[in-house]
Amino acid sequence: MKKNSIILYITGILLIFESVFLLLPMIVSLIYSDGNWKWFLLTTGICLALGIPLTRIKPGKHLSLQEGYIIVALCWIVLSLVGAVPFVLSGDIPDYIDALFETVSGFTTTGASILSSVESLSRSGMFWRSFMHWIGGMGIFMFMMAVLPMLGTSDMNLMKAESTGPSVERIVPHVRDSARLMYGMYFGITIAEVVCLLLSGMDLYSSLLLTFGSVGTGGFGLLNDSCGSYTPAQQVIISVFMTASGINYTFYFFIISGKIKEAFHIEEVKHYLGIVIASIVIITINISKIYGSIGISLRQAFFQVASIITTTGYSTVDYDLWPELSRTVLIILMMIGGCSGSTAGGIKVYRIVLLMKQLKRELSLLRHPREVKVLRMDGSTVKDSVISSTNVFISVYFVIFFASLLFISVENYDFTTGFTAVAATINNIGPGLSLVGPSCNYGFFTVYSKIILIFDMLTGRLELFPVLLMFSMLKPRRK
Amino acid sequence: MKKNSIILYITGILLIFESVFLLLPMIVSLIYSDGNWKWFLLTTGICLALGIPLTRIKPGKHLSLQEGYIIVALCWIVLSLVGAVPFVLSGDIPDYIDALFETVSGFTTTGASILSSVESLSRSGMFWRSFMHWIGGMGIFMFMMAVLPMLGTSDMNLMKAESTGPSVERIVPHVRDSARLMYGMYFGITIAEVVCLLLSGMDLYSSLLLTFGSVGTGGFGLLNDSCGSYTPAQQVIISVFMTASGINYTFYFFIISGKIKEAFHIEEVKHYLGIVIASIVIITINISKIYGSIGISLRQAFFQVASIITTTGYSTVDYDLWPELSRTVLIILMMIGGCSGSTAGGIKVYRIVLLMKQLKRELSLLRHPREVKVLRMDGSTVKDSVISSTNVFISVYFVIFFASLLFISVENYDFTTGFTAVAATINNIGPGLSLVGPSCNYGFFTVYSKIILIFDMLTGRLELFPVLLMFSMLKPRRK
Repeated sequence: MKKNSIILYITGILLIFESVFLLLPMIVSLIYSDGNWKWFLLTTGICLALGIPLTRIKPGKHLSLQEGYIIVALCWIVLSLVGAVPFVLSGDIPDYIDALFETVSGFTTTGASILSSVESLSRSGMFWRSFMHWIGGMGIFMFMMAVLPMLGTSDMNLMKAESTGPSVERIVPHVRDSARLMYGMYFGITIAEVVCLLLSGMDLYSSLLLTFGSVGTGGFGLLNDSCGSYTPAQQVIISVFMTASGINYTFYFFIISGKIKEAFHIEEVKHYLGIVIASIVIITINISKIYGSIGISLRQAFFQVASIITTTGYSTVDYDLWPELSRTVLIILMMIGGCSGSTAGGIKVYRIVLLMKQLKRELSLLRHPREVKVLRMDGSTVKDSVISSTNVFISVYFVIFFASLLFISVENYDFTTGFTAVAATINNIGPGLSLVGPSCNYGFFTVYSKIILIFDMLTGRLELFPVLLMFSMLKPRRK
Repeated sequence: MKKNSIILYITGILLIFESVFLLLPMIVSLIYSDGNWKWFLLTTGICLALGIPLTRIKPGKHLSLQEGYIIVALCWIVLSLVGAVPFVLSGDIPDYIDALFETVSGFTTTGASILSSVESLSRSGMFWRSFMHWIGGMGIFMFMMAVLPMLGTSDMNLMKAESTGPSVERIVPHVRDSARLMYGMYFGITIAEVVCLLLSGMDLYSSLLLTFGSVGTGGFGLLNDSCGSYTPAQQVIISVFMTASGINYTFYFFIISGKIKEAFHIEEVKHYLGIVIASIVIITINISKIYGSIGISLRQAFFQVASIITTTGYSTVDYDLWPELSRTVLIILMMIGGCSGSTAGGIKVYRIVLLMKQLKRELSLLRHPREVKVLRMDGSTVKDSVISSTNVFISVYFVIFFASLLFISVENYDFTTGFTAVAATINNIGPGLSLVGPSCNYGFFTVYSKIILIFDMLTGRLELFPVLLMFSMLKPRRK
């Protein structure tokens, strides 16, 4: 009973927060007079009517890590179930499952769309769709903790469940201060991008939406060709901010604390930037024949690499038409993803680096069997529990990957479509290749496949364990 | 210097063994008078001329695990380099890289061929090709140890490096007795299959070659349509023996020791059989529309599932034309592979089971953080070192997988071709899908790609570490 009261209490707070978020698209609707303000207001009302009574129950203060995981998974589902309502009411996306797909894709910063024409959305609907990226990017719980203290010491367990990466460290001692600092930096990067885009001559509405999509590493755009028709300068600005959003936020904390040297010595960041540069070089050379000029090839390669490794999913060209080497580089970047502690998805560079260090240790153990060697990252020893959960993560990642691929294959699409649809959703990217390529959409999938992909998006964003734990709790426990 | 003398000594012994093996195809050549006997005799001469002087140097007795790994990797390469010679001399495969591809494919029990028409091979060449499967299946070092004692206590380290699976246990205390017992059972299964095929009305030559290909889980056949034109009874016999060859040999040891109950309680074997049955059921239902009858569908599903999970690679139909669900099931089976301690390739069922147990433990740790839980397999605790090397194995497996895919993608084939070519070689299966499907061959690849795939076949057969260790030794050591 006590457990349930905590779950209900936190769900209540979440709904109240969502009601506040919904006011923004309502204002947008009033500005553009697209007539949808009433649907956002109605959904706000629903949120409050459900949320306020739930917060009346005062729960106990303690929350275990397990409960933290389950609450976060449940709340993300509730957030999406409610967030989809305005799309259906306004007629922007009349089918509820489609609307849910779009909403989960929004909050999880995937950016996969079922819409064949984005441009036919209402202004407020389009705003809500992109704004979800911004909310989901840094995390809804992180926001809740930044704004109000919830359960004291238990907040850490909620933060752990929602953050990306194998080991969550508060950058400053208190959870609440950490959350505020993270959102502060997030705000800072957001404003910087909006200003840059405005200076490049873009209107405020487009600047805001593209910024939500890139700092949240989401990928929902405003135009049917994603970012293809923006000016080269605007494309470069977006590329830079996407790349920046895939970096571990500890980097920015060091920068603002004046520790410039430490910032550039973070191993994960160094590897991340190395992978980005190497991929850009390979692809630039590979596609230079198509575009003729090295300059254009470089810009296209930079944009697509930044978009895919950070799991954003914007595109300036249909890279499905690129040579197989470039396509394969992009598929591998899909898996790797950005840094831990960033808004990006994927396996995360941290885990890949840890894996390589383990391989080195394993080979060195074969040479010197009696040697005891600890793994170090940024100078300090990596705990055994982090190593073991990282390994389990990577393996489970592939298990879920292939299981999803199997379930999708019932639909009899080609292998590339199935493979990249799963890769693009579990890694929260958006577009894949072939039938789900950058010039296509997910609308043709059946309800059955959409539900599997919705599961993949949530599992990917919450890094497998919260969702798995929730499902394992549904089963009756054997003793 | 001492290290080098051991390497040279063992290479010498290996060459002498290979010279003896080469006498068999020579005899076949004399029986069928295809005129190739002189080339086999010449290669035998080369082996002896190189091998005998090398064994004159008496090495020290001790051999570390690291040296064991490196010697095994090097010797498999020497074995293949020499084994390819008769193909070139006889004109069966005039190009040396092609001949090497075919030979590595033979010894590693992959079964991928560069030949567009198998039927145009000479009788002795075809025999040598299939016989390599039989030698490579149980392992050349295992054979050497069964026949003569080599380095005493050091033999265990050679056995570890060549055997499949995460932890090699001698089934009886002495290495030599274990090796003899393994080869004894291997012989037994071989003879049983030959007898069954003879009874089904097949000629001795075909019976022998198909048996080499199935008990070694290799996959080289005699006809261009692989096993498509054999009678249903013969196809079922081959299916049964392929399935049997993917089972951990400890199972057979328990059977012949009268421990029937224990045999069927080996967790890996239970899971292996479960996966086989589940896959057959799914595919039978999925393809029943194509073949009309459940009986035919069942037989086709059984054959293909047995062939792929054991990484043999025979086929009775072009499963590249099957619906996507069946194709995806087969792709997943390619990755899983057979049991550890069998002749099959792939990740191995043991590792997958261990992974699932780790996931269960990880989830349970989230619920009960203070609980100490050890992993058990067949009733006994799994050592931490086995768990950690299993995890590193699976992760490194995917790293090598995607790295190979990247290198192959330079050639600009479609994604399915590249993906399944790598999957089919690293897992030692043979055919993949699309351009490397069961009705196609690997001949169209460039020398560059063939070398990458040769590397994958060797790395897959020796389970990554020996080959990686060898390459890491080539680099100058930093201190």
